[in-house]
Amino acid sequence: MERLTIVKVGGKVVEDKDTLEQLLAQFSQIRGKRILVHGGGLLATNLAEKLGIETQMVEGRRITDAATLEVVTMVYAGLVNKNIVAGLQAKGCNAIGLTGADLNVIRAVKRPVKTIDYGYVGDIMGVNTSELRMLLNEEVVPVMAPITHDGKGQLLNTNADTIAADLAIELSNYYSVNLFYCFDKKGVLLNPDDENSVISELNYDRFKELQRTGVISEGMIPKLDNGFSAMKNGVSQVLITNPFLISMARGTRLSLKNDE
Amino acid sequence: MERLTIVKVGGKVVEDKDTLEQLLAQFSQIRGKRILVHGGGLLATNLAEKLGIETQMVEGRRITDAATLEVVTMVYAGLVNKNIVAGLQAKGCNAIGLTGADLNVIRAVKRPVKTIDYGYVGDIMGVNTSELRMLLNEEVVPVMAPITHDGKGQLLNTNADTIAADLAIELSNYYSVNLFYCFDKKGVLLNPDDENSVISELNYDRFKELQRTGVISEGMIPKLDNGFSAMKNGVSQVLITNPFLISMARGTRLSLKNDE
Repeated sequence: MERLTIVKVGGKVVEDKDTLEQLLAQFSQIRGKRILVHGGGLLATNLAEKLGIETQMVEGRRITDAATLEVVTMVYAGLVNKNIVAGLQAKGCNAIGLTGADLNVIRAVKRPVKTIDYGYVGDIMGVNTSELRMLLNEEVVPVMAPITHDGKGQLLNTNADTIAADLAIELSNYYSVNLFYCFDKKGVLLNPDDENSVISELNYDRFKELQRTGVISEGMIPKLDNGFSAMKNGVSQVLITNPFLISMARGTRLSLKNDE
Repeated sequence: MERLTIVKVGGKVVEDKDTLEQLLAQFSQIRGKRILVHGGGLLATNLAEKLGIETQMVEGRRITDAATLEVVTMVYAGLVNKNIVAGLQAKGCNAIGLTGADLNVIRAVKRPVKTIDYGYVGDIMGVNTSELRMLLNEEVVPVMAPITHDGKGQLLNTNADTIAADLAIELSNYYSVNLFYCFDKKGVLLNPDDENSVISELNYDRFKELQRTGVISEGMIPKLDNGFSAMKNGVSQVLITNPFLISMARGTRLSLKNDE
């Protein structure tokens, strides 16, 4: 099967002009079909603060009331997405910015309220692979903002790591998918204070053990949960890495092998 | 030639949930190929105000410094564009939101400084009709936000009326184009205080005369300049109207005929 590379980039990478520029330079050199999925949480938090809107996070997820939904729609789908698209076009990449609403690419449902009311947060119900494949076949590079819709006119805030994993899983029916999670570290660190303590290969049992002992925590947990879910559902390769290591494919590689 | 309807909508129509909903209902019923071009200036002005950014207008054009460019990118390409796209998807219209950067659809150049420095305002250099036709052929409905790019990574703020006219002109090589400028009045009014004093047909000489006498002023002038430019360059029909009159094709029809 033809290769498809899906790069998820978030955190400090998209917030800072220099690292974003370097990411786009690396991304634009990836051969073959590509999709970029981005976050932008810190910029959204900053804008919310300026507007006097309180940011509430629960387990790394943003509680999204109506005012916060406007903020994330503006920041993710507007500011971040369009600057990435313009940056890629400048490098000869024929990028197109998308949310889940565009071409109905990702349909979601407002998360049901159990113990926590997340507000306008969307859980993915389906990925429209035919529209994405139409674009990929036209040599177009989709750039996905982490906003979805419910098909009834309501936009929803959806985690970018989950979007990347779900796109990877659904598109693995048509392509051999490599999924790269890029952030500001070189991979999953055994010692958070040592940039060179990257775990080169991580299986699920070890991940759960490191989670129990607190070595892996916060935002890394849903990222790895998503990554393992992708591996178990047909994605060829999942790598947790830094934008500058994409071309070398170095970082933390997820593995389905059990420990010896 | 096949018909293409381009609807430009701005002003109070997109700012208000109810009128926007009615516009989308009308727009989604137009048969055949369609493009929607939108503004969102008042929402941008409101956000700028909340952020303490001063809004400066010269002849109906927004002076766009770096902070204002961020605001219009967030409001036009994010908030307004994605709510329209989600609203159209809910009505079975396969909409896709675009700026000029997406698919390199509209390339612009930062306006040279003469007497006034408009900042990050873009004058259109070219329309990429092949990408738009690819989407139209897929039964996709492009929804254009008034943001363009210079091809070197810089986003630019471009007047939505001009975008609508330039798209109409370039696409008139491939389609019989009807261009509708929709705003909150029923058409060009002979008496601004009388909603029913709509001029049903307006030619260029009469327009210039009404401009001299002050009957037509402010934002209506560039709209009509754009409309007449479209008529002179191959567009089949230009109508200045209200969203609720689209289906009846009533309003002010521009004409190239000279006065008797």
